[in-house]
Amino acid sequence: MTTSPGIHRSNEPAEVPEELREARATIDNIDAALVHLLAERFRCTKKVGVLKARLDLPPSDPGREDRQVERLRALAEDAGLDPVFAEKFLKFIVEEVIRHHEDIADSLAGEGAPTGA
Amino acid sequence: MTTSPGIHRSNEPAEVPEELREARATIDNIDAALVHLLAERFRCTKKVGVLKARLDLPPSDPGREDRQVERLRALAEDAGLDPVFAEKFLKFIVEEVIRHHEDIADSLAGEGAPTGA
Repeated sequence: MTTSPGIHRSNEPAEVPEELREARATIDNIDAALVHLLAERFRCTKKVGVLKARLDLPPSDPGREDRQVERLRALAEDAGLDPVFAEKFLKFIVEEVIRHHEDIADSLAGEGAPTGA
Repeated sequence: MTTSPGIHRSNEPAEVPEELREARATIDNIDAALVHLLAERFRCTKKVGVLKARLDLPPSDPGREDRQVERLRALAEDAGLDPVFAEKFLKFIVEEVIRHHEDIADSLAGEGAPTGA
């Protein structure tokens, strides 16, 4: 046995070829980084949601989203990522953010924040 | 005017409140990091796709995916990210990866790689 308990790669079955095992270890490290960046992104959009609800701004902002799409497509092209996928990825995240913003607006309204004023 | 041409935040219309503008600058930086990590992840899964096609392994590997889901849900919980979202996110990416792997397998088959041997 060349694997030790506690080393992440030991999650892979013994029959997995070494080259595949190595690539998967890199993918797992990237995924951990992605999860932590997404967590930070949602912390930030949560603050934006509270701010938008207080300022009575709509949860969705199509002008902002168009600018984000343009920018991410350009960054994706530079990085060698399919810009169509980058756009789909942004839409996937923004849908979740809008859901959060609607929840925040609902819970602020439920707390007796002024409405219709 | 406090904005200068070339500074990223100048993309935001002048009427956007400063606090929102600041949060959006952070979100844009995080998104650039996400795009670059995704680009690197697909570079890595592309190599995996070639390897799997050569070793005649199936594009999808349910056991591996189950282990990834478990791990990412745990990482998400530690980071304060909704584990349900983390799981959806992984599925979203894996769908794209499997599409790439199928393309790679098809193009290797088209190149006259041995089949049925």
